[in-house]
Formats: sequence, C-alpha cells, structure tokens
Amino acid sequence: MIKAKIVSTGFYLPPKIQTAAELAPLIGRSEKWILSRTGVAERRIAEEPMDEMAAKAARKALQNGPPPDCIINASATPLQFIPDSSVFIQETLGYKGIPSWSIHSTCLSFFVALHSAASLIETGTFKRILIVSAEAGTPFRDLDEPESASLFGDAAAAAVIEPTPPGESSGIIDWNMQTWPEGAHLTEFPGGGTRFPPNGPDTTPKHNLFHMKGVKIYKMARALIDKNLSGLYQRTGLSSQDIDWLILHQASGKAVQMSQAYGIPPEKTINIVAKTGNTIAASIPLVLATANHEGKLKRGDLLLMGGTGAGLSIAFSLIRW
Amino acid sequence: MIKAKIVSTGFYLPPKIQTAAELAPLIGRSEKWILSRTGVAERRIAEEPMDEMAAKAARKALQNGPPPDCIINASATPLQFIPDSSVFIQETLGYKGIPSWSIHSTCLSFFVALHSAASLIETGTFKRILIVSAEAGTPFRDLDEPESASLFGDAAAAAVIEPTPPGESSGIIDWNMQTWPEGAHLTEFPGGGTRFPPNGPDTTPKHNLFHMKGVKIYKMARALIDKNLSGLYQRTGLSSQDIDWLILHQASGKAVQMSQAYGIPPEKTINIVAKTGNTIAASIPLVLATANHEGKLKRGDLLLMGGTGAGLSIAFSLIRW
Repeated sequence: MIKAKIVSTGFYLPPKIQTAAELAPLIGRSEKWILSRTGVAERRIAEEPMDEMAAKAARKALQNGPPPDCIINASATPLQFIPDSSVFIQETLGYKGIPSWSIHSTCLSFFVALHSAASLIETGTFKRILIVSAEAGTPFRDLDEPESASLFGDAAAAAVIEPTPPGESSGIIDWNMQTWPEGAHLTEFPGGGTRFPPNGPDTTPKHNLFHMKGVKIYKMARALIDKNLSGLYQRTGLSSQDIDWLILHQASGKAVQMSQAYGIPPEKTINIVAKTGNTIAASIPLVLATANHEGKLKRGDLLLMGGTGAGLSIAFSLIRW
Repeated sequence: MIKAKIVSTGFYLPPKIQTAAELAPLIGRSEKWILSRTGVAERRIAEEPMDEMAAKAARKALQNGPPPDCIINASATPLQFIPDSSVFIQETLGYKGIPSWSIHSTCLSFFVALHSAASLIETGTFKRILIVSAEAGTPFRDLDEPESASLFGDAAAAAVIEPTPPGESSGIIDWNMQTWPEGAHLTEFPGGGTRFPPNGPDTTPKHNLFHMKGVKIYKMARALIDKNLSGLYQRTGLSSQDIDWLILHQASGKAVQMSQAYGIPPEKTINIVAKTGNTIAASIPLVLATANHEGKLKRGDLLLMGGTGAGLSIAFSLIRW
C-alpha cells in the first residue's frame, strides 16, 4: 500500500450547455438516436481556455491550504504544443517557481498522474501535489462522425495528494494497467504531431479531428477488463463485493453500464455521463470530485477507479479513501 | 536517496547530417555566424518517424534483457495528438500489454520521467522501466528565425531503470526543479493545441513552428541556475567539487560553456552540442548514453544532471551512477 491520500478535490463545468436536441441537427441524427447510442443528454462547451478551466477546478481543490509543491497537468487537450500546459495553469493560478509538467495518457492521464504522484509522495520527493485535468476538446469533434461527436463534453477537475497522516488508512492499495497497441487506431487524432504536422502538405482537416470506433472499443474492452480486474483482485485478496464506489471513466452510457457485468451494482457506480458526456482525462477526476462534493465518499471507503483510454489502455486501481 | 539504478542506456542518431554550411543559405546567415552564435557544426535530420527512432534507441538500452514492465515516452515532438506516442513506440518494439504513457516537460521530459520512474521503482510499483526520448523536431524550425533554427537536431535516446541491487551505491541522491511561467513565451510553439488549433481560422503557419528567444533565456537561466544548484548542494552536503560528470541539456554552445561559471570544468562536462545540436528532450539522455557508451561513467561516480526547459524550467539532480 502506498500511503498517499487524496486530501481534497475540485471541479469546474463551463456554463454553456449543449443538449442532445441542439447537437442532433449538427450531426444529422435525432435526439433519440443520440440518447440511445451514447446516453449523453447534455454536455458543457468551454468558452474559455483550458488553463482557466484548470485553474478554477484547482482553486477549489486547493481550498484555503498552502500552495502545492508540484503541479501535474493531466489533460489530453493542451493549450499549445510547447510549453506544456502545466506552465500556463501555474501562471493562471498566480504561482511561480513550482515544479510542473504534464502527463499524457489520453482518458487515463489523471489515473497515471495520480499513481505517479502517489509514488513521488511516498518517497518524500513532494508533500502536496496538485493534479489537474482540463479538457476543451469539443471543437475537435468530427461532426461527420455522429457516434463519437455525440460523446464528448468539456470540463476540468483536480485533486490534491499528500502523505497519509499516521494512524489513517488512506492509500493506494494496488493498480493494474495494460496498454494494447493493437487498439491504437480505435481512438485517434492523427494530426497535431510529426506524422501529420499542422503545416504539412499531406495533412487534411480530418486529420485534426477526433475519431473513435466506439463499438470496437467496447468489444475489446469487455474482453480485457475482466482480466485486468481479476489480476487486481488476486493480488490484493479483495473482490467486487468489497467495493464501496466505482469511479469509472465515463466513456459512454454503455461503458458505464458495463460495470454491472463485472459485479458493481448501479447504486455503487457514480454515473454522470448523461450530464457531462465523455470529458476525456477530466472524466475520472470529475466523477471523483462530484462524488466527494455530494458527500458520498467516507474515509475508509474502498474505491475502484479506472477505465479505458486511447492506446487502447485498460487501468484500474483499488484506493482506500 | 532513492534506490533506483540506470542499468543501461542506448541512443540513435539518424544518418542524414545537415552541416552549418548546408543550413547557412536556408536561414540567410553564414556558416561562421552559425558556429559563433550556436556552436552547432552539424545536426542530424530524421527521415523516419519518431517511434522508429525511439525503438532503435530503446532496443540498445534493453540489450538482451527481459521486456520492461513499464514504458514512458519522454519526448516533446509526438507522432500524433492521440494516442500518446508511448503506444506507437511499444507497437514498433513489438510489445503489447505493457503499461505505457507520456511525460511532457519539453527539454526536461527525460529528466522528469527519470525521477518519476525512480519513485515508481522505489515503491515497488515497477521493476524495469524503459524511458525513451525521440525527437523529430527539425521540420518545426522557423527558418526565418536563424538563432533558433540553427540550434535544433533530431535524435533518440533511452535508459532502463531498475531497483538498485543490495550492496550497490547507485541511486538518486536528490533533485531540484522550478518552473517559472514568466519565461513561458521565451520558448514556444503556440499552435498544436486548443489556443491555435491546426484547423482554427486564426491559426497561421508561424504558429506551427518553434520559436525561442535564446539570449533572454540565457540571461534568465544564469540567474536561476545558481540558486537551484545552491539549494541542491545545501540539502545534500555535496558541492561542485564532488561532481565527476555533468550531464547537461545541450541547449546551445553557450549554455554548455556556462557550466564553467558554476564550477564544473570542461573536462567533466560531456559536450556533444557541436555534433548533435539541441535535440530537445533527447538531449539529456543522449549525453548520458554517449558518455556511457564511451566508457566514461564508472559505477559510484557522482553525476550532476539537468538544465533548462521551456516553461522556463530549471532542474538539476545528483545521481550516484
């Protein structure tokens, strides 16, 4: 067990709402089609830069406490290519001199950052790490691809990680992640890098939009999640019966419902997908922060946190809240 | 001290060389101007994707050992926006199922990845982490900006991190990093994100190129490096006299020479800038792998590793090889 504690959380939802009814004509499908395929009734649309969203969520997570001694940006949609977005988030928060960087694992960026941060806390490297995920990805939706375009929404969420005080039970019990490159092309934004550079002669506007083959991911994930969870349960001696709350990446309505197939009943599954959609890396911390804000999480509760990410990656962890 | 050991390293330089004489007419300056301003006599130009460069360096670092149990891509120039490049590097290496992700802190990406990996090793989370940095950034040079355009080169380098075996002295003694957002605009690639998206109506080709104000960075860095190193020496009780090798980010010829100002003589400074230029995140591991390949590093040697990165970030660590 890694003795790191999520001491506080925060989230920010931009005020502008786009409902399924409003999105329907833009993607050539009906409201009913969107609701039945994705379960996303509405999503937020950012009208401000991601660093401002990030700072709003981070301020809530930092509360009135001291500044963090490390800032990790864990977002898939950066503000710009260089410097990494942590710099701009730090600037917008009004800090300077705090070591900061970014972790990118698409929808699992927060998950990876949390577990990296926990080890940095355990080794005494840092004492108060701010992790923040802010996604302003809705402009990258391909409206000609209704299935993926109707999934995404914008949001920001943050968490502060500190050493677990003596006598408390909070910590990371174990985590289990696998990345399967055979699924790389199931979730893709082909542009934005050296393969199809923004100024490249062979780069088309479609390269600079987000593409996802949801049904194929669902099938691949179904087969892999069972194995991932079995490994986690075997290593820890815990089981799905022990879980108090499932903090799942809200990939889609169907993905969240899938939790029942691996033994987590709906009443233990925090489900916000209808109101937020898939908010990429902000999704997992948004679920966590929402559950925390609603007073659902009690210290000592066992959380199962994780889901899928572009890669295809599958990751779950067992966390003592 | 974090008991993690860099067990092996590898590097790859693409075969195509661009000399200062060849670059001179492209940027409207003379060969002499390039040499006196940047100290970069030649640089490599990648003619293959970054994942292939990464895999070539990684295979050398992995030698005939077992596969890693974690892969961290630490590069500033991704192959594409999503998935993160670690997925493609894993695929090109012929692996599957290994947890992988990316860390981005521009020129300090390897530095941050190394220290994150060391903590993940120390907590027993992983036993053999591959870190790889591969940069194919030369197409992003702005040829209208001779000062920065004459600095960059392409390269890949990798390292494998494992727990320090009992009885050995290898480890991370301490590290010290600060990020100063007031320097954010000194090293910039404004495009490639949500601020100036590739398809955005306000995005210009110039947004999608790399810009750097080298003289201003040099001045800012001069003032900050002393403070960073003083902190590191105070905390550890070590001094510049104790350093066996300086593994410095090869930002420019002047940046490497600056080491003398903080007490490291040229014979202890690994200097490859004339032959490779600034290879962004690949720079630090390339220096490390070159020194290792040349047989310079002896187990027990004290390494000072670090430099500057976009942010502006300053980071140094003391490593017992």
